[in-house]
Amino acid sequence: MPLLKSWIDSANAPEGPFPLNNLPYGVFSTGAEEPRCGTAIGAMILDLTALEEEGILTAAEDPVLDVPFWNDFMELGPEIWESYRAKLQQLLSAEAPPETRALIEPHLVPMEAAELHLPFLVSEYTDFYAGRHHAENVGTMFRGPENALPPNWLSIPIGYNGRASSVVVSGTPVRRPWGQVKGPEDDLPRFAPSARFDIELELGAVVGQPSEGPVTVAEADRMIFGYVLLNDWSARDIQAWEYQPLGPFQAKATATTISPWIVTKAALAPFRVDTPDRDRPLLPYLQEPGPMLYDISLEVTLAPAGKTPTTIARTNYREMYYSAAQQLAHHTTCGCPMNVGDLLGSGTISGPAKDSRGSLLELTWGGKEPITLATGEIRRFIEDGDTLALTGGAEGDGYRIGFGRCAGMVLEALADPYAGSSSVKRGQ
Amino acid sequence: MPLLKSWIDSANAPEGPFPLNNLPYGVFSTGAEEPRCGTAIGAMILDLTALEEEGILTAAEDPVLDVPFWNDFMELGPEIWESYRAKLQQLLSAEAPPETRALIEPHLVPMEAAELHLPFLVSEYTDFYAGRHHAENVGTMFRGPENALPPNWLSIPIGYNGRASSVVVSGTPVRRPWGQVKGPEDDLPRFAPSARFDIELELGAVVGQPSEGPVTVAEADRMIFGYVLLNDWSARDIQAWEYQPLGPFQAKATATTISPWIVTKAALAPFRVDTPDRDRPLLPYLQEPGPMLYDISLEVTLAPAGKTPTTIARTNYREMYYSAAQQLAHHTTCGCPMNVGDLLGSGTISGPAKDSRGSLLELTWGGKEPITLATGEIRRFIEDGDTLALTGGAEGDGYRIGFGRCAGMVLEALADPYAGSSSVKRGQ
Repeated sequence: MPLLKSWIDSANAPEGPFPLNNLPYGVFSTGAEEPRCGTAIGAMILDLTALEEEGILTAAEDPVLDVPFWNDFMELGPEIWESYRAKLQQLLSAEAPPETRALIEPHLVPMEAAELHLPFLVSEYTDFYAGRHHAENVGTMFRGPENALPPNWLSIPIGYNGRASSVVVSGTPVRRPWGQVKGPEDDLPRFAPSARFDIELELGAVVGQPSEGPVTVAEADRMIFGYVLLNDWSARDIQAWEYQPLGPFQAKATATTISPWIVTKAALAPFRVDTPDRDRPLLPYLQEPGPMLYDISLEVTLAPAGKTPTTIARTNYREMYYSAAQQLAHHTTCGCPMNVGDLLGSGTISGPAKDSRGSLLELTWGGKEPITLATGEIRRFIEDGDTLALTGGAEGDGYRIGFGRCAGMVLEALADPYAGSSSVKRGQ
Repeated sequence: MPLLKSWIDSANAPEGPFPLNNLPYGVFSTGAEEPRCGTAIGAMILDLTALEEEGILTAAEDPVLDVPFWNDFMELGPEIWESYRAKLQQLLSAEAPPETRALIEPHLVPMEAAELHLPFLVSEYTDFYAGRHHAENVGTMFRGPENALPPNWLSIPIGYNGRASSVVVSGTPVRRPWGQVKGPEDDLPRFAPSARFDIELELGAVVGQPSEGPVTVAEADRMIFGYVLLNDWSARDIQAWEYQPLGPFQAKATATTISPWIVTKAALAPFRVDTPDRDRPLLPYLQEPGPMLYDISLEVTLAPAGKTPTTIARTNYREMYYSAAQQLAHHTTCGCPMNVGDLLGSGTISGPAKDSRGSLLELTWGGKEPITLATGEIRRFIEDGDTLALTGGAEGDGYRIGFGRCAGMVLEALADPYAGSSSVKRGQ
């Protein structure tokens, strides 16, 4: 599929992230106005809440974009997702007649002038562990090379439930957490700020339809509405002490940052690729009827406070061993009900090369092999004031499907975590 | 504190679960009516939504009981929780004047005639592992006696995030799940119905106030609104194969049953007891300013289809090593935001004696020591048609604070889990 031309010039730039082929969904505000639903087109945001209010473009009889999240729209289901997108593409197409442009133009807002919010209400959040290079790297560091890949890893898309309340939109600062840490030589744990605070480069799948019983991989794929970039901030020292036997808990609860635009499955359709060959046959319920990964190139940058960013990793979502559809199908095997707004983290996306690793833990091999930034600074883990940013995109024939930025600056830990940070009242 | 007498006779029976001292909060319906908020008093339910509608008893200026859940009421905070309860006790007290009785009486519904629903919207669900006997028993079976208690167990109230969408109210049937299982002799896993389906006897703490940063144990205690009985249904064969390295996932996702009445912290106040002596000093953030466990005796019964129940375990919540307040405080250490409606499972409550163990896994030692029911049947794990029920209560001076039943019947596994059980459409 070539570039679809729009009458909005900035959408036709070959390197731009938001051509007419993309049309990702987000929530924005300008000034003191309440947040509204919109789509990114070139350098502009089109106010879709306004189009619905004025009857120019509606998804259903009752309004669904009169709320600052996309959940009500997602509930309408795949047929409506497709018909709405088709109508939206017509309205913005270079072939649209002048009277259409005249209707739409008053509802365009420069992206520069807008603040972006979480695009959907996160119902529940599940984080997976589906990148083989990542699992092997981390397994080697945590359990030694002979136990690197757990025995179940080639059979199960391993996942654990995360904390939905921790999900924040790109741009939200992230406070370095305190927690229990214990060094290998220590007799007892200490309560201290995390000294090994890290990122995990992931893709998040947004579940757009509910289910009640087990679903097939094909059904799971149909339930997925779209994808976002996701940074699963991780306190490695807290994780190492807490994670056995029941998995990561507080180490992953500080924040999970997502990019502000949901890139739809429809926009990514031309970029579908197969999962890799299997070392061990998958059980039938996990076998895919078609390609369900995507060719999405990904990048991580690190910028010390006030300095320019350095790219510290480049990888691709196609490196994953399991697709989001396989993860979602597995998620339902025991009858677990899934809901609109559930978010599934892919797991860290690391490639085979050293500079394609999606976490500092792997990039610096647990801090033993520090990296040097273009600005001269050395990093083992994140330092206060650092901004970590994920970007990504799929490269089409003369166009690009971008995700926008997924960024956060790390603030220094609280001096006393029990002073003034709580919203509950002090004392009894 | 002695029995508080009510003008509703059935509330004064010394063995009854719902005296005036209790007044637990739930959601009920009769016939085709929409579910409403109510309190249990003796053999009756008092329709608190109606009292609010008619202005007889209100919690705040705006209505909060016009919805079928207690979340809006919980949001009002501890002062309102207390003043509302005090007013409710006055209205139902034996000392209330006849004109008060006349106002209230039309809004009493026999409990027998009512259907009970989930009493609150579960925001997120966290399950802990805070019973020492349980942790030692399970640890011995899963990892051998030398690794029974994980090294972090005496320092951290270990927990993992569960799945809020799986929480159901007592009486909801539970379908035996399918999942990946692999025996020690098998080369590859199979996809099969769980053959080791089990219960976990727990107490659930209902979080009634939000927090944004780390909170102290005293603050955490203040955030807790009340308690329910909780059965964390567990597929042991699925759990054994999936749980390393990131913890239990699908093994715990089939269902989590809770009792229909939230017993308030206020009703339980006379039954506070200290946590046990510590083998290892706790870090200061986990130290309690006062007694935060409760003396609540608990019982599990098992009834094969059409047969009478046998009591298979008797224990007490005071056996726990960590209180819900300690768990909640730990939950916030990394800055994890907590919300109204969060549910915290205590972890399985096992006592030191063999018949005080809160799971079949422990009671039958992994199936190796079957138990014989009063009806003659033998059980290793749950069989189809079995009803498992938890009950519990705190024994006061001439009265009892009961929780109601937390029960579920296990239905046979689906013949084909991928036929007809899904709410998403088939095919593409």
